[in-house]
Amino acid sequence: MSEAFDTVDIIRTKRDRGELSPQQIAWVIDAYTHGVVADEQMAALAMAILLNGMSRREISDWTGAMIASGERMDFSSLSRPTADKHSTGGVGDKITLPLAPLVAACGVAVPQLSGRGLGHTGGTLDKLEAIPGWRAALSNEEMLDQLEDVGAVICAAGSGLAPADKRLYSLRDVTGTVEAIPLIASSIMSKKIAEGTGVLVLDVKVGSGAFMKTQADARELAETMVALGQDAGVHTVALLTDMSTPLGLTAGNGLEVRESVEVLAGGGPQDVIDLTLALAREMLAGAGVTDVDPADALQDGRAMDVWRAMIQAQDGDPDAPLPTAKETEEIVASADGVLTRLDAFAVGVSAWRLGAGRARKEDRVQAAAGIELHAKPGDTVTKGQPLMTLHTDTPGRFGRALEALEGSWSIGAASELTAPGSIVIDHVR
Amino acid sequence: MSEAFDTVDIIRTKRDRGELSPQQIAWVIDAYTHGVVADEQMAALAMAILLNGMSRREISDWTGAMIASGERMDFSSLSRPTADKHSTGGVGDKITLPLAPLVAACGVAVPQLSGRGLGHTGGTLDKLEAIPGWRAALSNEEMLDQLEDVGAVICAAGSGLAPADKRLYSLRDVTGTVEAIPLIASSIMSKKIAEGTGVLVLDVKVGSGAFMKTQADARELAETMVALGQDAGVHTVALLTDMSTPLGLTAGNGLEVRESVEVLAGGGPQDVIDLTLALAREMLAGAGVTDVDPADALQDGRAMDVWRAMIQAQDGDPDAPLPTAKETEEIVASADGVLTRLDAFAVGVSAWRLGAGRARKEDRVQAAAGIELHAKPGDTVTKGQPLMTLHTDTPGRFGRALEALEGSWSIGAASELTAPGSIVIDHVR
Repeated sequence: MSEAFDTVDIIRTKRDRGELSPQQIAWVIDAYTHGVVADEQMAALAMAILLNGMSRREISDWTGAMIASGERMDFSSLSRPTADKHSTGGVGDKITLPLAPLVAACGVAVPQLSGRGLGHTGGTLDKLEAIPGWRAALSNEEMLDQLEDVGAVICAAGSGLAPADKRLYSLRDVTGTVEAIPLIASSIMSKKIAEGTGVLVLDVKVGSGAFMKTQADARELAETMVALGQDAGVHTVALLTDMSTPLGLTAGNGLEVRESVEVLAGGGPQDVIDLTLALAREMLAGAGVTDVDPADALQDGRAMDVWRAMIQAQDGDPDAPLPTAKETEEIVASADGVLTRLDAFAVGVSAWRLGAGRARKEDRVQAAAGIELHAKPGDTVTKGQPLMTLHTDTPGRFGRALEALEGSWSIGAASELTAPGSIVIDHVR
Repeated sequence: MSEAFDTVDIIRTKRDRGELSPQQIAWVIDAYTHGVVADEQMAALAMAILLNGMSRREISDWTGAMIASGERMDFSSLSRPTADKHSTGGVGDKITLPLAPLVAACGVAVPQLSGRGLGHTGGTLDKLEAIPGWRAALSNEEMLDQLEDVGAVICAAGSGLAPADKRLYSLRDVTGTVEAIPLIASSIMSKKIAEGTGVLVLDVKVGSGAFMKTQADARELAETMVALGQDAGVHTVALLTDMSTPLGLTAGNGLEVRESVEVLAGGGPQDVIDLTLALAREMLAGAGVTDVDPADALQDGRAMDVWRAMIQAQDGDPDAPLPTAKETEEIVASADGVLTRLDAFAVGVSAWRLGAGRARKEDRVQAAAGIELHAKPGDTVTKGQPLMTLHTDTPGRFGRALEALEGSWSIGAASELTAPGSIVIDHVR
């Protein structure tokens, strides 16, 4: 970096609604990675970006600078095309677990670098760690070998990939600047582009349990990310999907593994099956595989075979019983009627408080904690029947978990039910 | 503080244009003072305040919380009323130097807690330190004794006064959040209210050399501060004064002391005399002294007598020669005509680069560096006559100092001259 810029000038430019030059963006990301720009300066800049926005050109430069802060992976030596999926995060979103082996079973390699949960949304690695023995950390070489041999890998992203993003993500988390669309888009896309996947399918959640509460925001985020991916030569599409109510019937680490295995065995809740297949079809189509129906691979056990191989390759035992919680508590229906509403965010917060999630990065999650749903919106319920079962190893947590659920569901007449839409709301290409 | 708040919730509230409660404000300032709220969190909050503003009630609570972070002084034991002045900072603004002894000579004690310069505006303490022997640091007892004996004291604010402001001010300086009116107003007023003066006169500068570039911004700041002072029981008025061109004929520490002494000797530039008298009259009127004309005290040597006593009480030698710069360089007029414009900001930056100011808190200033003006807007000049003399101990700095002055003045016809207004633009009561 030959030219140095003044950090305060850069902050002021964005504060005063100006556009940052490519050189300013490259400099500020590089300087932040190397500690020349301080956390408090980046925090002020992030807040200015959140409130004043960024042009598409600025977002593209910001993403490029974050990619340039670290290494890039290369899957071109593989004998198969690669496709990856990213979800913006939701409650009960275990889709990666059945999806990765399913797509691999159809002939496309899936290098899924995942994260841990923070806040009310769960993390894929936390879920898989409920499986006895399974390990998240792989070397690049192990990852490539597993991709070649098994076809699917879900593992922790190494620290070499977009290190600027790692530092910025932690900062945004404590400074109220998570919700900035330019920063969300560049955070996700810098890692996915650096990872080197050929095809990327984005699952952009919208609704109470998602970061994006409105379709307009979700669409803006989706369009921004699709443009970033395409500009970088990655075949990228996005689905807008519903996150107003939890996905499937479980929220919690071990509980979601169990439900994922049900889907891989040809069963499971319809919304989980539908979304898994919709995403699989996009990944396969992006990779040029159009003659295979992934629904068949769920039914005939091919996806399950890859799942077992994938878990075993990372030292997990697919046959070991999943941990069960020390204590459970049931919530029952207070009236006869139809469940007209069940709020995703409330269920997410409640599961989090039961121990399924962490408040700070250094917290440990409970493998067995979470919530099992016995009814979903549209289902008829009778007074006294169980609506949910809360699971935890620390019964002292039931109080605040129940508090989070207060007012989060309604039982009424079928006429009060908003017509249940498809889980997939729209496509952005 | 019995109740704890979540820092991110507070940041989000202001980010989303909400109003912070008195309890949230009290908590966040207290927690920041004690290191519970981190610098990066306060930086994000400061940027949100700058961009989304604060209600008068929030600003009042914020100011109160900053006062509560430290000690309060008490001048009620003095035999005289007290009056203080605060300037928002400008180029060539040495007014405190003649003003404090002048007001004291008229029977009102002046406890002037001052700061050092940062950026293109000079600091009163830096100026007085050009006087051999003079020391800025006094104990509270020394300060009270000097106020009683001499009537005027200009010294460094102790670290006990509004410590939250001290920390926040340094943070704002590096995060592009200096220009937030709620933060400027609460920073100034928390210190002045904690200091315990009975009367406060604010000199709110407007123009290129001031923080407030427009009259509308300056008026908003003035009104906000006057309301804060009056709510706290301090008789407070503000003058909006012109800072489009430098005040007087000097910018620089020792140079400004010399000019101040000229004013105290009954001479000096007219704008410096006018502003000194306007501020003195407000301070005296606020303290109930209406039968004394401060102009007389400048002419008859009473103000000079207090000046000498004030400097001596702080170990300074009022008769010692002021330091002179090792090198000077002259700028001459390139044409005959009238000087129609001389930009305050450019002169401030140039003097700063010559060594009169500091880029970082830990830098040392040069006592003799600065700029002497030989003409002001409205003056007739002839080709080849000196317009300015640049002073520095480090001649390597002339280049960048001259660069700052490029295009900063114009020579033209008398008809091009904007009608010179009074130095005092308006009063806010």
